[in-house]
Amino acid sequence: MEKVNIILLACVLLIALITIGYVFLIYHKIRKLKVVNKNVENNASYIRSGAITFLKREFKIIVPFILIVALVFVALGFIPAFSQAEGVGWQSAICFVVGAAFSALAGLVGMLSATNSNSRTADAANESGLPRALHVAFSGGAVLGLCVVGFGLIGLTGLFFAAYGILYSSSGDAIKSVMEACNIITGYGLGCSMVALFGRVGGGIYTKCADVGADIVGKIEADIDEDDARNPATIADNVGDNVGDIAGMSSDLCESYVGSIISAMTLGSVFLSNYGVPDDIRLIIFPLALAGLGVIASIISVVIIRLREWKDPQKTLDIATYIAVGIVVVAATVLSLFYLKNGDGSFMSVEGHAAPWAIGAIAAGLACGIAVGKIAEIYTSADYKTVKNIAKESETGHATNIISGFASGMKSTAATVIALALGIIIAYFCFGIYGIGLAAVGMLSTAGITISVDGYGPISDNAGGLAQMSGLRPEVREITDHLDAVGNTTAAVGKGFCTGSATFTALALVLSFGQYSGLIDSLTVSNTETVMRVDITPFIIGVLVGVMVPFLFSSLVINSVGKAANKMVLEIRQQFKEHPGILAGTEKPDYNRCIDIATRASLKEMIVPGIVAVVTPILVGILLGREGLGALLIGGLASSGMLAIFMANSGGAWDNAKKYIEQIGKKGTEAHHAAVTGDTVGDPLKDTAGPTMDILIKMMSVIALIMAPMLRDGFSIWHLIVK
Amino acid sequence: MEKVNIILLACVLLIALITIGYVFLIYHKIRKLKVVNKNVENNASYIRSGAITFLKREFKIIVPFILIVALVFVALGFIPAFSQAEGVGWQSAICFVVGAAFSALAGLVGMLSATNSNSRTADAANESGLPRALHVAFSGGAVLGLCVVGFGLIGLTGLFFAAYGILYSSSGDAIKSVMEACNIITGYGLGCSMVALFGRVGGGIYTKCADVGADIVGKIEADIDEDDARNPATIADNVGDNVGDIAGMSSDLCESYVGSIISAMTLGSVFLSNYGVPDDIRLIIFPLALAGLGVIASIISVVIIRLREWKDPQKTLDIATYIAVGIVVVAATVLSLFYLKNGDGSFMSVEGHAAPWAIGAIAAGLACGIAVGKIAEIYTSADYKTVKNIAKESETGHATNIISGFASGMKSTAATVIALALGIIIAYFCFGIYGIGLAAVGMLSTAGITISVDGYGPISDNAGGLAQMSGLRPEVREITDHLDAVGNTTAAVGKGFCTGSATFTALALVLSFGQYSGLIDSLTVSNTETVMRVDITPFIIGVLVGVMVPFLFSSLVINSVGKAANKMVLEIRQQFKEHPGILAGTEKPDYNRCIDIATRASLKEMIVPGIVAVVTPILVGILLGREGLGALLIGGLASSGMLAIFMANSGGAWDNAKKYIEQIGKKGTEAHHAAVTGDTVGDPLKDTAGPTMDILIKMMSVIALIMAPMLRDGFSIWHLIVK
Repeated sequence: MEKVNIILLACVLLIALITIGYVFLIYHKIRKLKVVNKNVENNASYIRSGAITFLKREFKIIVPFILIVALVFVALGFIPAFSQAEGVGWQSAICFVVGAAFSALAGLVGMLSATNSNSRTADAANESGLPRALHVAFSGGAVLGLCVVGFGLIGLTGLFFAAYGILYSSSGDAIKSVMEACNIITGYGLGCSMVALFGRVGGGIYTKCADVGADIVGKIEADIDEDDARNPATIADNVGDNVGDIAGMSSDLCESYVGSIISAMTLGSVFLSNYGVPDDIRLIIFPLALAGLGVIASIISVVIIRLREWKDPQKTLDIATYIAVGIVVVAATVLSLFYLKNGDGSFMSVEGHAAPWAIGAIAAGLACGIAVGKIAEIYTSADYKTVKNIAKESETGHATNIISGFASGMKSTAATVIALALGIIIAYFCFGIYGIGLAAVGMLSTAGITISVDGYGPISDNAGGLAQMSGLRPEVREITDHLDAVGNTTAAVGKGFCTGSATFTALALVLSFGQYSGLIDSLTVSNTETVMRVDITPFIIGVLVGVMVPFLFSSLVINSVGKAANKMVLEIRQQFKEHPGILAGTEKPDYNRCIDIATRASLKEMIVPGIVAVVTPILVGILLGREGLGALLIGGLASSGMLAIFMANSGGAWDNAKKYIEQIGKKGTEAHHAAVTGDTVGDPLKDTAGPTMDILIKMMSVIALIMAPMLRDGFSIWHLIVK
Repeated sequence: MEKVNIILLACVLLIALITIGYVFLIYHKIRKLKVVNKNVENNASYIRSGAITFLKREFKIIVPFILIVALVFVALGFIPAFSQAEGVGWQSAICFVVGAAFSALAGLVGMLSATNSNSRTADAANESGLPRALHVAFSGGAVLGLCVVGFGLIGLTGLFFAAYGILYSSSGDAIKSVMEACNIITGYGLGCSMVALFGRVGGGIYTKCADVGADIVGKIEADIDEDDARNPATIADNVGDNVGDIAGMSSDLCESYVGSIISAMTLGSVFLSNYGVPDDIRLIIFPLALAGLGVIASIISVVIIRLREWKDPQKTLDIATYIAVGIVVVAATVLSLFYLKNGDGSFMSVEGHAAPWAIGAIAAGLACGIAVGKIAEIYTSADYKTVKNIAKESETGHATNIISGFASGMKSTAATVIALALGIIIAYFCFGIYGIGLAAVGMLSTAGITISVDGYGPISDNAGGLAQMSGLRPEVREITDHLDAVGNTTAAVGKGFCTGSATFTALALVLSFGQYSGLIDSLTVSNTETVMRVDITPFIIGVLVGVMVPFLFSSLVINSVGKAANKMVLEIRQQFKEHPGILAGTEKPDYNRCIDIATRASLKEMIVPGIVAVVTPILVGILLGREGLGALLIGGLASSGMLAIFMANSGGAWDNAKKYIEQIGKKGTEAHHAAVTGDTVGDPLKDTAGPTMDILIKMMSVIALIMAPMLRDGFSIWHLIVK
């Protein structure tokens, strides 16, 4: 590699290390804040220990999985079809384990930050008011956001660097070493995916079974408020926010982040292998450099926001995002103009497009993420007509509420797909298939700040819960409610962003798989078209199965929430029955038994969906070959995208229709009861099944990418029978 | 053509004509039965005139659409890119108009039969008991079933025959004339599709808006029974059964039937064009001959059943089906062994498979249809655990009922897709891509009897309604309830059959499109693989849009039901308010105003979804070219299939969970209220949106097939920009 590449990689690694250093600095500062109110501290410690217990047990289940898969990687390395350079073998196994560990670490640190910030946010609201509370909550979120991108980038850059160094020192062939290093780090992505899958599914089931269970017995049967300390499931409910919305979301976005970079690098590597021009190594380094810029932009934004105490939460979060996006756009422009050059000083050309067009692709990714988020807002915010319409339909009963929410979520897929399609088209026209990969990286480059803003929500929510159960003054609850309300908007936008980025990342992964498995005819990659040659029958069967899997997966996850919530309901009822003192306020409920139930149930229930996600692509690949597997991914990509949008937006709209009815003073009416039904139906859709769709498809794509070399010669049971 | 082909075609035409003759004979016999009870006759006449009014007005809206499309066909014929032989031009326009007319005719005759049989079934139950009533209801259904296949086959065979004759007399080239005739009759399929689309959507909205409206005000607000004569929407509700489940279903299955034959013929025609062996003309005639055999089998079955009066409805319907299936399997075996031979007496060979393997493909189609129906039964019948589980979940409230029904419908897609995939694989391994076409024809060959059995359900349902509103003895209602209960099972199985056949038909149409547009590389059609070459980016965008369209279409249709039902609710409330005598039983309600509202609303609401279905494939084809359009179809095929299964099975399960709760004596409990919510939510899903999915995808496929020649050279806006 040229010196500039090595320097650039070293810089990225350094930036990532600095980020982690900065993360621990903020974390230390948060920890140093003393919580004055003893009640708050006490309740927060319950939540903290419940969350840590869950993570510990979760890791106990995940570790054997990880080790088995790692052994499979090592074993595959001994099979001739998989040479060490092909993404399996002991090097990949190491990458895989490191990926899993870093993803878990990101989730753990994020959660520690969140469970320490929540009490301090409540306390700050109690002691000194909104600006201080906002500062603490934002800082807690920033730890989360920056540690996700920091850990993700350290692992990726470090491993790539190391793999290249080892390969180059033994072969002396820079091009070959870069390409092989590219393949090896795919394992890192799979490690992140696997932890993210279990984290999202397990965390999602946990948070909703506790929520639904607490609501059914608490709100409906015993007529006590949300977050009432007398409810035995209250702590579990708050723990759920942390393990689902914090740890699960962190691992998820870490995975998206890493996946987008890997897929762009792989697309660059295909390019390199087609033409073999040494300068093209820059196409592989560029996504990493872009990610590095994004991290710098995120840090700058966090530093600026933390300089002072702000008064308007919405404005603060918006400014944070604008700063980061602005810096990235400018810096990426400079980088592409100076870095994407050939040895002779001319601009590099990708599929007939000169380097400056790369900026168009990156901008298309960023714009598309924002557009998808905005569409989600239109379909789920009470400021627009969809939610008002659902509120109106609630007046004729439960059924009409459900039907209208159901239909509106389905309808929202249309605008979203058009936005995504436009983004893909523009990225492609700007910079070819590689441009689609860059768009994904561009969209996720500001992930550091996006996750910070996203993490701020559950922290504020938890702070509100603590204020309520610790009996703080009503004004404190008002402050946290204000913080939380802003968090709801950012959550809706964040979900749209997740879906958008997942679609782009998965698409880039699918394209990498296509090129790498030989499904896409590499020789005809040209500036006019990228041709895929497929045997049509297994392809169509693959699409059918691919479109079906997200339906099956969703149904499994939704059913799991139902089963787990039932167990929770029985436990709460029993505690109320056996200890009448609890409701009277004279006796403490047994929080731990509820936490234990949620933990056990969610961990048990996450296994079957997890196996479905892992086994399906392997089975389809072996049975139907690369065309079947490619089709599975394409069908799964579209179907999981549609279901993710549908479930997120239906759920969000039901939720806000209920809140809207409460706001216009109709709480307790028949219409409100109907709206509560919609909200409850929407909960497992939007918070459990919906968010898992993204990981499901990315996980299947990464597995496919690793299987690609085995299928390259057209191997499959299908073809064995036909031939 | 050889003489044997001409004789065979003439036989098929003759069989079809005899079928129509037999239909009118049965219809005449039904009409001759005198209705003794004046009340029944009176109420039945309301229903009859309401249904006829709807059809008349529907046709008034459809006719301009048909004429415009026909003119477009003629106009396109003058554009050089579309020579007259390519499926457009005045010949195709004629086929299109005839197809629309015959499809409408099938719906009309079927509906006349149903609206005459319902009163006579009720009367027979009143006068002489179950066996006589069963005989009448079955006869009414048989008119429906036989007229659908009769009209479908007359038009198809007659037009093919005529087109061939004209072309041959001017060119003298048999092979070319056969191929061109094949293309021309595609227009016939589109004519059927268009009427079916409007019929299904309009009829579906009509039946559910009347049903939901009548239930909300009648059952819930005024506390009167279903089918109570005091409810102003009662007649509209019963009219709805006829325009939705009879006329809509008839046009739908007529379209499936015709579509499957056309697609198999087109696949045969591609084969002929590849190799140019005159013997291969038999591959084009064979599907028609197979359909002819199916019609004979259906007639024999109807004749045997009508010979005597049976006592057990379920057994009778089962026997009718078994007779027809048995005859078809034997007759198809004989036909393929004797007909699929080369001039030298050796068996013909398709893609490396000898002719006797055709039987395997046909049997795979039949078996797959039965399997999909059986899976639907398992997920929707109270005899199995899914429905019992939903009933149990209803005890914890509306939300848990909805969630469990929602999840179970999603889960049912898995087994269904596996059954479909196995069917496709077996058909393909038996007889190549052409075998998939044959499987579709095989599955639909017994459509005559399947539709008879399917039509029997709504007739019995209507008879029950008439018994109730005409105040017949309770024992009469028991008889009709027994008939109706059997109808529910057959309806569930019938829906599965519709979905299965639609998937196969659409798949065959997609393959025809692929081969005909050049998307599938015809030159590489071999016994090992059929290769599709696509530009990957527009292809993936096409899949995304294709998977999205069924979501959008469903949401539009579901919303329409909601809007129309709201209007109905307001009207009924107003009548009750302004005329208190109605509820007291001293005043007749104004049935016509309700009928008018349902008619207007459903016809108005069917237009937007109709336009979406027509415009999307045209737009995608022009923008993204043949790869985008092919992808739209493949994605749409999978997505519409999944949504059809999901909505049908969720809806069916909710419905039967409610009935199960009533059966175990829990009517009126909280659990029952929750189950009623599920049933109401399921209504528009299973009876309006679900059944339209099939036509949506077939309609888009037929449009694509017609556009194929325009796209053959790779034309699209996309490619214009890229190149």
